[in-house]
Amino acid sequence: MINKNIHSICYGGDYNPEQWTEDVWVQDMELMKEAGVNFVSLAIFSWALLQPDENTFDFTFLDKIMDLLHSNGIYVDLATATASQPPWLSIAYDDVMPVSADGVKMTHGSRQTYCPNSRSWRNAASHLVRTLAARYKNHPALAMWHINNEYGCHTAECYCDNCAVSFRKWLQKRYKSVGIVNEKWGTRFWSQYYYKWDEIYPPRATMGKKNPSHVLDYKRFMSDSLLDCYSMEYEILRQITPELKITTNFLMGIDKLDYFKWAKEIDIISWDSYPDPAPSYNPALNAFDHDLMRGFGNGRPFILMEQAPAQVNWRDINVNKHPGLMRLYSYQAVGRGADGVMFFQWRQSLRGAEKFHSACITHSGDGNSRIFREVRQLGHELKKLNCITGSTRKADIAIVFDYENMWAFEYEDRQSKSVTYRDQILNWYKPLYEMNIPVDIVGTDSNLKGYKILLAPLLYMTKEGYAEKIKRFTADGGEYITTFSSSIVDEWDGVFPGGYPGPLKELLGITIEEFCPLTPDMKTTIALTDIDDTIPETSKARLWYDIIHIVDAEIFAVFSDALGKGYPAITYNYFGKGKAWYIGTETEPDFKKAFLSKICLRQNINSLFSLPEGVELNIREQNGKKYAFILNFSIKNASIDIMQNSYIDLLTGQKIHDRLIIESGNIRILEISS
Amino acid sequence: MINKNIHSICYGGDYNPEQWTEDVWVQDMELMKEAGVNFVSLAIFSWALLQPDENTFDFTFLDKIMDLLHSNGIYVDLATATASQPPWLSIAYDDVMPVSADGVKMTHGSRQTYCPNSRSWRNAASHLVRTLAARYKNHPALAMWHINNEYGCHTAECYCDNCAVSFRKWLQKRYKSVGIVNEKWGTRFWSQYYYKWDEIYPPRATMGKKNPSHVLDYKRFMSDSLLDCYSMEYEILRQITPELKITTNFLMGIDKLDYFKWAKEIDIISWDSYPDPAPSYNPALNAFDHDLMRGFGNGRPFILMEQAPAQVNWRDINVNKHPGLMRLYSYQAVGRGADGVMFFQWRQSLRGAEKFHSACITHSGDGNSRIFREVRQLGHELKKLNCITGSTRKADIAIVFDYENMWAFEYEDRQSKSVTYRDQILNWYKPLYEMNIPVDIVGTDSNLKGYKILLAPLLYMTKEGYAEKIKRFTADGGEYITTFSSSIVDEWDGVFPGGYPGPLKELLGITIEEFCPLTPDMKTTIALTDIDDTIPETSKARLWYDIIHIVDAEIFAVFSDALGKGYPAITYNYFGKGKAWYIGTETEPDFKKAFLSKICLRQNINSLFSLPEGVELNIREQNGKKYAFILNFSIKNASIDIMQNSYIDLLTGQKIHDRLIIESGNIRILEISS
Amino acid sequence: MINKNIHSICYGGDYNPEQWTEDVWVQDMELMKEAGVNFVSLAIFSWALLQPDENTFDFTFLDKIMDLLHSNGIYVDLATATASQPPWLSIAYDDVMPVSADGVKMTHGSRQTYCPNSRSWRNAASHLVRTLAARYKNHPALAMWHINNEYGCHTAECYCDNCAVSFRKWLQKRYKSVGIVNEKWGTRFWSQYYYKWDEIYPPRATMGKKNPSHVLDYKRFMSDSLLDCYSMEYEILRQITPELKITTNFLMGIDKLDYFKWAKEIDIISWDSYPDPAPSYNPALNAFDHDLMRGFGNGRPFILMEQAPAQVNWRDINVNKHPGLMRLYSYQAVGRGADGVMFFQWRQSLRGAEKFHSACITHSGDGNSRIFREVRQLGHELKKLNCITGSTRKADIAIVFDYENMWAFEYEDRQSKSVTYRDQILNWYKPLYEMNIPVDIVGTDSNLKGYKILLAPLLYMTKEGYAEKIKRFTADGGEYITTFSSSIVDEWDGVFPGGYPGPLKELLGITIEEFCPLTPDMKTTIALTDIDDTIPETSKARLWYDIIHIVDAEIFAVFSDALGKGYPAITYNYFGKGKAWYIGTETEPDFKKAFLSKICLRQNINSLFSLPEGVELNIREQNGKKYAFILNFSIKNASIDIMQNSYIDLLTGQKIHDRLIIESGNIRILEISS
Repeated sequence: MINKNIHSICYGGDYNPEQWTEDVWVQDMELMKEAGVNFVSLAIFSWALLQPDENTFDFTFLDKIMDLLHSNGIYVDLATATASQPPWLSIAYDDVMPVSADGVKMTHGSRQTYCPNSRSWRNAASHLVRTLAARYKNHPALAMWHINNEYGCHTAECYCDNCAVSFRKWLQKRYKSVGIVNEKWGTRFWSQYYYKWDEIYPPRATMGKKNPSHVLDYKRFMSDSLLDCYSMEYEILRQITPELKITTNFLMGIDKLDYFKWAKEIDIISWDSYPDPAPSYNPALNAFDHDLMRGFGNGRPFILMEQAPAQVNWRDINVNKHPGLMRLYSYQAVGRGADGVMFFQWRQSLRGAEKFHSACITHSGDGNSRIFREVRQLGHELKKLNCITGSTRKADIAIVFDYENMWAFEYEDRQSKSVTYRDQILNWYKPLYEMNIPVDIVGTDSNLKGYKILLAPLLYMTKEGYAEKIKRFTADGGEYITTFSSSIVDEWDGVFPGGYPGPLKELLGITIEEFCPLTPDMKTTIALTDIDDTIPETSKARLWYDIIHIVDAEIFAVFSDALGKGYPAITYNYFGKGKAWYIGTETEPDFKKAFLSKICLRQNINSLFSLPEGVELNIREQNGKKYAFILNFSIKNASIDIMQNSYIDLLTGQKIHDRLIIESGNIRILEISS
Repeated sequence: MINKNIHSICYGGDYNPEQWTEDVWVQDMELMKEAGVNFVSLAIFSWALLQPDENTFDFTFLDKIMDLLHSNGIYVDLATATASQPPWLSIAYDDVMPVSADGVKMTHGSRQTYCPNSRSWRNAASHLVRTLAARYKNHPALAMWHINNEYGCHTAECYCDNCAVSFRKWLQKRYKSVGIVNEKWGTRFWSQYYYKWDEIYPPRATMGKKNPSHVLDYKRFMSDSLLDCYSMEYEILRQITPELKITTNFLMGIDKLDYFKWAKEIDIISWDSYPDPAPSYNPALNAFDHDLMRGFGNGRPFILMEQAPAQVNWRDINVNKHPGLMRLYSYQAVGRGADGVMFFQWRQSLRGAEKFHSACITHSGDGNSRIFREVRQLGHELKKLNCITGSTRKADIAIVFDYENMWAFEYEDRQSKSVTYRDQILNWYKPLYEMNIPVDIVGTDSNLKGYKILLAPLLYMTKEGYAEKIKRFTADGGEYITTFSSSIVDEWDGVFPGGYPGPLKELLGITIEEFCPLTPDMKTTIALTDIDDTIPETSKARLWYDIIHIVDAEIFAVFSDALGKGYPAITYNYFGKGKAWYIGTETEPDFKKAFLSKICLRQNINSLFSLPEGVELNIREQNGKKYAFILNFSIKNASIDIMQNSYIDLLTGQKIHDRLIIESGNIRILEISS
Repeated sequence: MINKNIHSICYGGDYNPEQWTEDVWVQDMELMKEAGVNFVSLAIFSWALLQPDENTFDFTFLDKIMDLLHSNGIYVDLATATASQPPWLSIAYDDVMPVSADGVKMTHGSRQTYCPNSRSWRNAASHLVRTLAARYKNHPALAMWHINNEYGCHTAECYCDNCAVSFRKWLQKRYKSVGIVNEKWGTRFWSQYYYKWDEIYPPRATMGKKNPSHVLDYKRFMSDSLLDCYSMEYEILRQITPELKITTNFLMGIDKLDYFKWAKEIDIISWDSYPDPAPSYNPALNAFDHDLMRGFGNGRPFILMEQAPAQVNWRDINVNKHPGLMRLYSYQAVGRGADGVMFFQWRQSLRGAEKFHSACITHSGDGNSRIFREVRQLGHELKKLNCITGSTRKADIAIVFDYENMWAFEYEDRQSKSVTYRDQILNWYKPLYEMNIPVDIVGTDSNLKGYKILLAPLLYMTKEGYAEKIKRFTADGGEYITTFSSSIVDEWDGVFPGGYPGPLKELLGITIEEFCPLTPDMKTTIALTDIDDTIPETSKARLWYDIIHIVDAEIFAVFSDALGKGYPAITYNYFGKGKAWYIGTETEPDFKKAFLSKICLRQNINSLFSLPEGVELNIREQNGKKYAFILNFSIKNASIDIMQNSYIDLLTGQKIHDRLIIESGNIRILEISS
């Protein structure tokens, strides 16, 4: 539960009353109540107004709006207002502005433009947070803290001299001696050997390729630097309001922060979801992000902190959400674990960079809009779903996702720039999504108990302890599935000596002699070694193939075309009570689906309903009840066989006995008693 | 008239004798006379030679060539030589070099590389201009002043500290208080609130999106800064030679200067036209630029100050002008209002960045070239057209073009980057061009008297007073045609509260609830509500559609396909004696042509002749006579029915009674007595 | 001969033992011997290890490995270790780091990041080289010196203040007076006139186009600056070890160094060859590079200093070399003149930017790999080819290649960016490659004695003396073939006055009035003036056409399509005993092949064997014997008619009488006694 006073799904959005006169606030209260809003995020970008100069605070507007919200029964997710410092602060201290790798020092004029290692910025921010928290700690509207905003969205890296000093301290803590840095980074290569700490700089502009371990550690350092900023605020708030939950909003597509590491410091995961409404967009991508966010919190319910009621303003072409699409995505969120559905933003700005980002109240300024009607309808529906809050999802399959692995693999020079980590993950996620098989996304140090299958595509980096953990998982009966370019390097991006796949050789029962990245006009074919009813006998492969040698494994498929001919393409190895698979090429989506179907069948994993293409199913469970969210993303009406059972439609309260018809773009939420 | 001594069309070009020895000058005089040259632009890039150091001037070469030109009967458009300062000046003063938004300080080595707000540069330039003007004020060859050269061609923006100071002064003058800046720029958004003037900087490199109003005002400020440079020179020249006309040459495609504002300070508009000779180029684009330039001068004749005799040197592929093409474009210029036809340049440079830009005298150095023969032929023809000078054009249709609107709309984040202002203007200009209907291009503060139709595509910004002016225009019987994304913001790029289309709601009789930018694979269809003989019943639409609600308007067409189905697509509203149209999508060119044809027919607007495709007609009028320039840009010969009338062919002096045959690439100029 | 002790083909590679522990060194010795290695390049990137600080050297590891190699019979190509300075040096002296044209000062962290005009860097480097050479001058393993590494690969340009000072000195030496700089650079254009040396800067960031002569001279200056660095080391080594050969390794695709000028200072040419193993790659490209490198050394044998045993790490997609491909390319090298075949690198790095660059010993660390087996096989084969060392190639045809011409032509603004120099050269090289006609690549100052045909495609720049030389060549009976955009400028990029083709007018018997670059949708056709059995009567042409006027020449083909219709397209002029051709357009590959075939036939030039498509022939000769390397690059087996002769297969020692079958991917080396 987010807060002891909120028993329903949180509903509301970012609210920026400082952009409006007080008469508009009064209208907002009425419209919020009309829409069923119970929760708003406040003061995210208010620093400049709250603090006119270094020694003066002015909480007039915030006092008023906090009181007004309270008197209208709306709770506040109060931001710490540190997302963007005032111009005067940017100017007053020379260390505030971040510097690019090319040495360009930034100027204020946008948002989030500060160096995370700036002492001046940190001092000012902690002063603000301490003052704000002290003032509102007992305010009855205050329900949760919202630290900063979308960390790393614009400033995920700085290369200034302060960062250089902090980086050296970070390295000293991590490596103790400069000799170990040399060893782990392999600085005997290219005459990069460091004799003193002070010789180490951020990986600034240089003439050739950079040291990959240096770059990797700098990414870790920058993620940690921003996390330090977060933790600094967290500790202040925790001390002043020990009982309140604290969050910061993650953002889809932020690849420069190690969210798994961050999540450990966050009470409730919340995130900002902006699926593209263009018809070519695949809702599986947003589903994956939900699963990832839920994974950060180890399965706990999260908050959808921002979504757009209609279009955004930052794509090249900002397609509008057609009627019903916002509702569909809202239920995708709830179905995948959200206990809160929030918008950016409540009232559309008239000025500034985001004025064409849609809002619940459009530029017309009133409630007479299609968009507001949809917001209101959703608000009323969500009130019927109090039973959902706190419920969780169950999955038999987990997919490993690891930021450090992505950072290491996606170094500027690599085996193939056609291969990206996120695509490799999604290529395996999508068939499971289409089969409506629930999946959890886990980190490399997550608890694997309860999973039957663990997928680890392109797990290039094998950190200390991971191989043992996976062996245990497999030995205990799990199926481990991994793919090409896995287990190549240690956590400093050093190749394991003795050949691939490093410490997973025993588990997989193979060695890999060579890897062969392929250009788009280089294709190959795989053929199954045994005939199988459900998997096509031969199938195209592309992008990459490995030269695999069998040690103990069995061959499931071989390359049957010119490229790699006769060599194993897919192998499996019995290991303890389980099985470890290796897929040494990029197979087609249909092959992956058939292959995973077969494994799921054997592991007794299946979908609760058989659903037509384009219809998504999500199950949440609590107190012995299942709640099925069926979402028709397809352009056809869906007819669903509920197989003689009877369920309750949560929105209408009616029982469903027969076939269920869900119109294109519509949803149904069924309560299933076990 | 440019000058009391020149009674014919000005003919000549940029002349850079400093690149040649004096024996070549003598050959030049002979060749100029052979070609009919009566006017040359001199000294544009001569500063470094004219002033060896800060305290020394050396006018030796200029004295000589001025005298030589005079003794050969050739008048001089004397440049102020400020287009590029000498290296010694760039080095002597630290404030001269411009600085990019990224903080890169430029170095001399090209041309036009100076900060427009550099005090040192301005001092040196005014010193030069004063000295030059004093020396030549009574020289008999001097016919006109040519200030600087193609302002903004390379340096249209600088972000240095001097510019920061000047920007603050500019803002203080415009806004009086920093509070008003905050209000107009919406700085309560993203914590950008300014407490002091000194907190405001140029929109330099920053980590996220910039404040659009800040960016817009900086564009205004930079255009004004360069205009200040121009005015500084203008005032010196005006004082020393009160009777002489003064120009500066505009350049096609310069989008960073508000030429409408500049034009008010210029005695004679002149411009540099460089249509691409590649076969895929549409001559309508150059025609539009001519109309735009004529519009800057409120219809007064202008000078084509530069065109290439053959190819240019700065395109990726510099196609040569095939025989006759230069002549065609020369008459397009005259037909559209030019009283001067000038080349860049007279004699082709042997060295430097532009040595492969064609010239009247080619690298062979003599007059034995196809290019020179064409220059000579044209020179002789133009001598027969003295009657044209001073004549003007008449148009019943005007199209609004507004630089500030372009700057505001084309902010880095907008509804759709697939929409650009110039394309939207051209999409409506081209059908009228193809129909040979004369069009004027007007600014938002131009006088609309006499126009029957006013087109305002994508007029996103509605400045103060504009709505009233348009209402008056329409009420008085005009037809106003505007399109999607119009009347969204005020002149500070703030959205009008209360919904779209802001202050034009009453005029148009509609409100617009939402806008829907479309990706290239999203198409829709419009269908007319009434059958019409001349306009296709249904037609494709793309790029964008609006959700329109009718208040008072009539529906002309609705969306008939999935996207927007049933909503109005095109509306019209009777307003006083006139009618106001709104086109809420991007229609096909054929639709636009049929639609405009119908409106023209009703307004009794038509072309003097019915001409085959690819044949352009231009009419100039004076003293009761019409002069028709018929240009065959097509690859076929054109047969034209002159409808029983008889005309005089101005070049041959013969009467034309019958059908007129104009060969592909040829032209005809007819005198029509009314 | 590389060294008096090495009588066979040098075989080995870059060896970086500092990345490994000493037990690995021992394994390396065994594996090297197993593979037939006799030569390794050592210490290329060892500076940081060899010199812990400015006053301390530590040669411990190098002493040990030198001794170990010697005791295993392996000779050393000892690098001077200056390819990358240690971090401490980069930090200690402010002048070491290079600066970009935009003013970005680089930071250490990669390799080769130093300013070539840094006094501090040069001092430190010469100190190192002197110390190193003194220490190892008498070491029995030392066989050759390897200066630095791949000069210009990353840092071919610097724009710092030190470079500015050095540039002025370079100019003073070249031009004596600033007045001559002004004249040669044409600074009267665009007000760029210099009054003092100190006004001249490197061509740093500026707002418009730069002065092309300035840019050209800066390229010359930077190539010379790096050459100065090389020569500084060369002189030290020459003094200390007067008898040893000295090299530096060139790299394919380095366009910023004038290798013809450099080659004069190098004892043995060596180079690094990295053909793309992707199937779309044309082996003619690598063949051209071999011929170019051999040309640098005036035909002397060279060393293939680096090639990849399998894939590289720096392409977007690093395709693996399929089995046999490395061997094919190795014999292409030997066949085209290499007396050494070396790899980058011996043992694959586990860390650093190049860890995915293949090596002889893979990440498995042992000799159990396909790659090592191929390395070993090749090593054993090469031992049978001692007779090859020192042999040379003979060619009747030469193609001119000139770096300064490329730099001048490829200025940022030119007639057509679709035309590039290297492509124009390759377009004429490829048909000769396909016909297996040997070609030499020569510079503009090479000796032309013995050639029957000289091809000079796009020789835009004609340096002083070149025209006379070519006239002599032709007058003596040679055929000179040149193409469009040739002989346009002098060596300062100034256009020859009096029209094109400048000083070649008399030789070619034509003048060119205009040039017409074409867009991709502009095509034309040429037609032969006389019917010819072997050349198609008409043929497509594209990219460019010239307007040619005949003075004395004969017309071989005319333009027969709209573009250029009726004008000559190809001409020839009898000149003395020879003939000079001009090709005024870009013809199709098939036309070029037919055209060149005909000329070769007349000049009695032909291939020793008639070979199927995709089969490459190379002949080396020595002591009256010919050695034919036949390489089957095609995907089919080749059947070759050896025409009743009998040859010895050098690898098997067997006589070949009959048809010769060479499998796809295989090679044959035949000894042919004359």
